[in-house]
Amino acid sequence: MEQLRVDLGERSYDIKIGYDILANVGEYLKELKLGSKVLIITNELVDSLYGREVEQAIKDAGFGVSIAKIGDGEKYKSLDTARELYDQAVEANLDRSSTIVALGGGVVGDIAGFIASTYMRGVNFVQIPTTVLSQVDSSVGGKVAVNHPQGKNLIGAFYQPKLVVADVKVLKTLEERQLKAGLVEVIKHGMIWDEEFFRFFEDNREDILNLKPEAMIYAVKRSCEIKAEVVAQDEREMGVRAILNYGHTIGHALEAITHYQRYVHGEAVAIGILAAAKLANKLGMLDLADVTRQENILKDFGLPVSFTELDNDDILKSLAKDKKVQDGVIRFVLLEEIGRVVIKSDLPHNIIREVLEELRG
Amino acid sequence: MEQLRVDLGERSYDIKIGYDILANVGEYLKELKLGSKVLIITNELVDSLYGREVEQAIKDAGFGVSIAKIGDGEKYKSLDTARELYDQAVEANLDRSSTIVALGGGVVGDIAGFIASTYMRGVNFVQIPTTVLSQVDSSVGGKVAVNHPQGKNLIGAFYQPKLVVADVKVLKTLEERQLKAGLVEVIKHGMIWDEEFFRFFEDNREDILNLKPEAMIYAVKRSCEIKAEVVAQDEREMGVRAILNYGHTIGHALEAITHYQRYVHGEAVAIGILAAAKLANKLGMLDLADVTRQENILKDFGLPVSFTELDNDDILKSLAKDKKVQDGVIRFVLLEEIGRVVIKSDLPHNIIREVLEELRG
Ligand SMILES: NC(=O)c1ccc[n+]([C@@H]2O[C@H](COP(=O)([O-])OP(=O)(O)OC[C@H]3O[C@@H](n4cnc5c(N)ncnc54)[C@H](O)[C@@H]3O)[C@@H](O)[C@H]2O)c1
Ligand SMILES: NC(=O)c1ccc[n+]([C@@H]2O[C@H](COP(=O)([O-])OP(=O)(O)OC[C@H]3O[C@@H](n4cnc5c(N)ncnc54)[C@H](O)[C@@H]3O)[C@@H](O)[C@H]2O)c1
Repeated sequence: MEQLRVDLGERSYDIKIGYDILANVGEYLKELKLGSKVLIITNELVDSLYGREVEQAIKDAGFGVSIAKIGDGEKYKSLDTARELYDQAVEANLDRSSTIVALGGGVVGDIAGFIASTYMRGVNFVQIPTTVLSQVDSSVGGKVAVNHPQGKNLIGAFYQPKLVVADVKVLKTLEERQLKAGLVEVIKHGMIWDEEFFRFFEDNREDILNLKPEAMIYAVKRSCEIKAEVVAQDEREMGVRAILNYGHTIGHALEAITHYQRYVHGEAVAIGILAAAKLANKLGMLDLADVTRQENILKDFGLPVSFTELDNDDILKSLAKDKKVQDGVIRFVLLEEIGRVVIKSDLPHNIIREVLEELRG
Repeated sequence: MEQLRVDLGERSYDIKIGYDILANVGEYLKELKLGSKVLIITNELVDSLYGREVEQAIKDAGFGVSIAKIGDGEKYKSLDTARELYDQAVEANLDRSSTIVALGGGVVGDIAGFIASTYMRGVNFVQIPTTVLSQVDSSVGGKVAVNHPQGKNLIGAFYQPKLVVADVKVLKTLEERQLKAGLVEVIKHGMIWDEEFFRFFEDNREDILNLKPEAMIYAVKRSCEIKAEVVAQDEREMGVRAILNYGHTIGHALEAITHYQRYVHGEAVAIGILAAAKLANKLGMLDLADVTRQENILKDFGLPVSFTELDNDDILKSLAKDKKVQDGVIRFVLLEEIGRVVIKSDLPHNIIREVLEELRG
């Protein structure tokens, strides 16, 4: 088992990363000296796969355990679901010293974290992320949220967990599309921060896609490390943290205009990454070789790098409405080389259009 | 105009206290260098009294202003109202740099603060408290919340405002009962922390009840100062901050078993204060003279110090369910003398019963 400390002063916490470590969760909780009651928030599918093991482990460590299940899918990350979870927290008799454990992907993690951050003005929060995305991304950084009909993650908070337990074994039951889409965020961390880590994916494609324990533990750990480093510099997302959104500007626009139906998040980000790479190249910032390396790795991992049917004007309109836009200026995260990132605003619209044309498959 | 700095590191903020200063609110906001959009959250009554003046002041300072009104009363401090306010925040096109201004009593302040703390994971928050209670109590300390059917303030956060503007002139339109009940919290700050401040109320009863500017500005300022001092030592309410709950243990029980219908909060606290004083005396901690001084000042300000009809067993049962109870131990905040406070747990039930008997009017 590997361990990583996320350094945020009195809000610091550990991420434990291992293979087949769910049975130890109870012991981990015990070490934290939390109160006696635990509410596990999960969904039907994840509960059926891993619920009993986690429940038993926590019970065996002497905690009282209740379980709350939410629907499966982004649409359940809502204020309506939050209301039901508050009711269940009351029913479970949680007090201020109690702990909410999120067992699931990013949807479960985000809403469970939101409940933890607001129930009695904040109870203990522990994450057991079960998707690649949630292990390397949503479990580091303290962003918790629910969606509003008018905007994803519009209602939320910054709230740090007391502990994250990432068991890479559970990734075996993921649908292949989810697995690949999740890997985009991992590889992205290499692109923006660490060329060597990027190369690791070029060199170990098979081991990663086959979820070899050693390779996956390393990938998850280094990815969390990079995200944690960035977040530690900017806990409340005022500046440098924005670089984590590499590929997300165009990516979000593609998701939005396809009403979050066509792409899994990571797929849209993959296209967005290639868009950003091409933009940087056209602006004379990035060598063509580094564009090609990014394109190749995305293809190697079975990810989309082009789109069809979508309208440039729709994409540009959606870009202008993005939450990350402030005072009407669209910001792009761009590479100068693999591992070195800058933020640029006010890119000429005609260059964005050119790139969109090239991505049209 | 007087000014007070609440010292919380990077979350520090100013409280401005004055007479007839609403027209300056726009300038105050401008000094903070916030974004260009402001959403004022208020209710019909307060809006009709002070809405235009505040709105105009903020507009004149160059901000875009929207107004959202909630229903009048504790029952509107709910998740349902919060949902409507999120919608209105979206409609007002708030972005991360925008500001939510609470204009009203504690109900408006608490829910507006909750929205500010969660909308886009936190936007700027400014309080213009318009009741005594909200000026001296809820505007200092960063507690924001909405109620859950099963518990008051069950859903909330700790979220500091960027600024508080307390205009004591607006207290003139308060109902007398609200005014007096609010003063309980002010006098309470003298009781637990500052005998001299307590004496100020003994000596200046008329000026206070007539809302003489100088006396009220001093009372509000010193009260905020005391609360701020306590809060600075314990921002997230893990320890010493509990002393602010003087009178609240029995007070809450009385409110709960009368279903929040019979008493205004401060009235229940007044009875709770006398209960705590008598308890301390029976335990040999507090002189009878200091019990009498507390009883007299409460009576002088027209506050209740006894109750009728209520059942001791109901009160004791309600005590045991209190949110402040941890692991089944009821904690009481008690005085050793006026201005000096301690926290005691595990008081003998028969002494509590004796005191309840004595309070029965
Ligand atoms: N908080 C953050 O910083 C952050 C960062 C990125 C994304 N997110 C959020 O994360 C969410 C997406 O997360 P996600 O991609 O994990 O989606 P998800 O939570 O919807 O999980 C994807 C699917 O996999 C299933 N699943 C989960 N674990 C499984 C397992 N071990 N085996 C088999 N199936 C499993 C789920 O039931 C679901 O159907 C979005 O709501 C997004 O906003 C948050
Ligand atoms: N956040 C905290 O730390 C904290 C502390 C104490 C109390 N509270 C909360 O505060 C709330 C009670 O606050 P409150 O006592 O101010 O009640 P309130 O907000 O309901 O106001 C009382 C009444 O006075 C009216 N009003 C407000 N300002 C007025 C004015 N200037 N002139 C005429 N009428 C006016 C209101 O419309 C309302 O009818 C409770 O919900 C309580 O939980 C919060």
